[in-house]
Amino acid sequence: MKSVQIAHGSGGQAMQQLIHDLFMQAFNNPWLAEQEDQARLDLAQFTAQGDRLAFSTDSYVIDPLFFPGGNIGKLAVCGTANDVAVSGAIPRFLSCGFILEEGLEMATLEAVVNSMAQTAKAADIAIVTGDTKVVQRGAADKLFINTAGLGAIPADIHWGAQTLTPGDVLLVSGTLGDHGATILNLREQLGLDGELVSDCAVLTPLIQLLRGIPGVKALRDATRGGVNAVVHEFAAASGCGIELNEQQLPVNAAVRGVCELLGLEALNFANEGKLVIAVTRDAVESILAQLRSHPLGQHAAMIGEVVERRGVRLTGLYGVKRTLDLPHAEPLPRIC
Amino acid sequence: MKSVQIAHGSGGQAMQQLIHDLFMQAFNNPWLAEQEDQARLDLAQFTAQGDRLAFSTDSYVIDPLFFPGGNIGKLAVCGTANDVAVSGAIPRFLSCGFILEEGLEMATLEAVVNSMAQTAKAADIAIVTGDTKVVQRGAADKLFINTAGLGAIPADIHWGAQTLTPGDVLLVSGTLGDHGATILNLREQLGLDGELVSDCAVLTPLIQLLRGIPGVKALRDATRGGVNAVVHEFAAASGCGIELNEQQLPVNAAVRGVCELLGLEALNFANEGKLVIAVTRDAVESILAQLRSHPLGQHAAMIGEVVERRGVRLTGLYGVKRTLDLPHAEPLPRIC
Repeated sequence: MKSVQIAHGSGGQAMQQLIHDLFMQAFNNPWLAEQEDQARLDLAQFTAQGDRLAFSTDSYVIDPLFFPGGNIGKLAVCGTANDVAVSGAIPRFLSCGFILEEGLEMATLEAVVNSMAQTAKAADIAIVTGDTKVVQRGAADKLFINTAGLGAIPADIHWGAQTLTPGDVLLVSGTLGDHGATILNLREQLGLDGELVSDCAVLTPLIQLLRGIPGVKALRDATRGGVNAVVHEFAAASGCGIELNEQQLPVNAAVRGVCELLGLEALNFANEGKLVIAVTRDAVESILAQLRSHPLGQHAAMIGEVVERRGVRLTGLYGVKRTLDLPHAEPLPRIC
Repeated sequence: MKSVQIAHGSGGQAMQQLIHDLFMQAFNNPWLAEQEDQARLDLAQFTAQGDRLAFSTDSYVIDPLFFPGGNIGKLAVCGTANDVAVSGAIPRFLSCGFILEEGLEMATLEAVVNSMAQTAKAADIAIVTGDTKVVQRGAADKLFINTAGLGAIPADIHWGAQTLTPGDVLLVSGTLGDHGATILNLREQLGLDGELVSDCAVLTPLIQLLRGIPGVKALRDATRGGVNAVVHEFAAASGCGIELNEQQLPVNAAVRGVCELLGLEALNFANEGKLVIAVTRDAVESILAQLRSHPLGQHAAMIGEVVERRGVRLTGLYGVKRTLDLPHAEPLPRIC
């Protein structure tokens, strides 16, 4: 079976061949085809869409590489695209850096790269510049990916957490914790296979639905640290408090099962296709209706509100209000 | 001694603290301070400088992390800045993704981050968006960095390897192989310490000197694979041949020593602060004069020419012409 060799990252013939036979074929686009040290992107296509450039990066180290609902390649496109998209921008271009462990099966790399290409193409995103490094056996665990993304932010969109004021309402675009629970189940062999699927998805279509609606104030995708981390970021950036209602949190039965089994909270689980949205109170119904009209937002729900009193609190199922701390760490490393 | 823990990459409090106490302090700039999921960069600052955006990425996995002349952090700024700058753009913004091994000494991370910050500041580059992942002990070797870079390409610059024609001349901006030989010496304990120093540098000032001069046709920085790899890329992109003259290649005495000791060629050694420049014959003298007027180009030299007959050839010290192949691999992995 063919595998990745040190030579594939060395700048010599073996690397040239890998680039031509795999990356150029899969990511096939005119910018990459120029084979310069940098992609050259017409600025006019950005200024036609907006007045600011959204620029974001993430590295992906998830273990295992493949999971129900996706793999590290799909995740590397969705995750960075979403970090660009929550600004209101349409993500258009990605860079891609691979760190490969010597001995990785070439078939594994091919499957990951083809999944990246397919996810990017479906979202109208081009992977325009890249890099490949290979490290010796044992110096990395199989395969890491970094992507950085670009898109133009329309001039009329100024979403930001610092605009939140008491009275605003918090929505989520769907069920909490599906990605984190899926990885936890695989890694800890909880045996819930078949019921848990990562929500990994490019959220641009859902986010663009919100563009025309007044009342949207801030948007984040809830990844590592879950909805809890976003809510704490919102509270810190705005100087307000936030109160969530446990009864309103949408959670799939299988995810709820994992939580009860392990004594964990879905609020802290990673998502890879869910938004937390802060909106003015008068816009709640119209925004929920818009979200629910799209498959990616069909389980959208109101989960809490912005209040004057600082801190983040959760009202439990029996009506008791308690402080919701941001945990020191997530339940699991390498969730994304 | 403080060290990196799994919690530092988990999206919880420990990660927030690392971001605040280290990254935000060191990289300190208004874009990062907004703490959104993406940097938001005014497009007007790009369109004021050019008509195209240069976008490039590299991952850095060099071993050892620290070496004479630099470290992985300095390299992660210089390498990506140079890949942007060789388009003619002035690199302005970087993203930065860290993959950290659990147990890495915090002091090591701090030294690397501070070096990145210092190198970026000196080159007027802002590190505006980032990401941190931590993997378990043994799942990565200490510390990997990915950077992606942005800059605007002036409308009057259209450098590109496909513009080369027979009669054009190849220059290098200085001595060959200093970076590769330095790392080789450290890794193989050749005992030449003190004489070998990496040439790791941001080349923007040198490249911008060439901007106004007619006759510059193509530019690459010669990193992995050395000058040999660039020359092969130039030949492939232009459909021409290239002939180099061994006698003209500028090589430091210590680097020459490493080459003779190991039977290797400086042409194949990585550089991190050297340009290969293709120019029209009538411009050779004025361009060499410009290059030599700058400390980064003081050892600039003519090394060969573009010819009709395909292939890459080297005329040896005794006048014998032989085919110069691109090696299957570099002498060493993890050179950058």
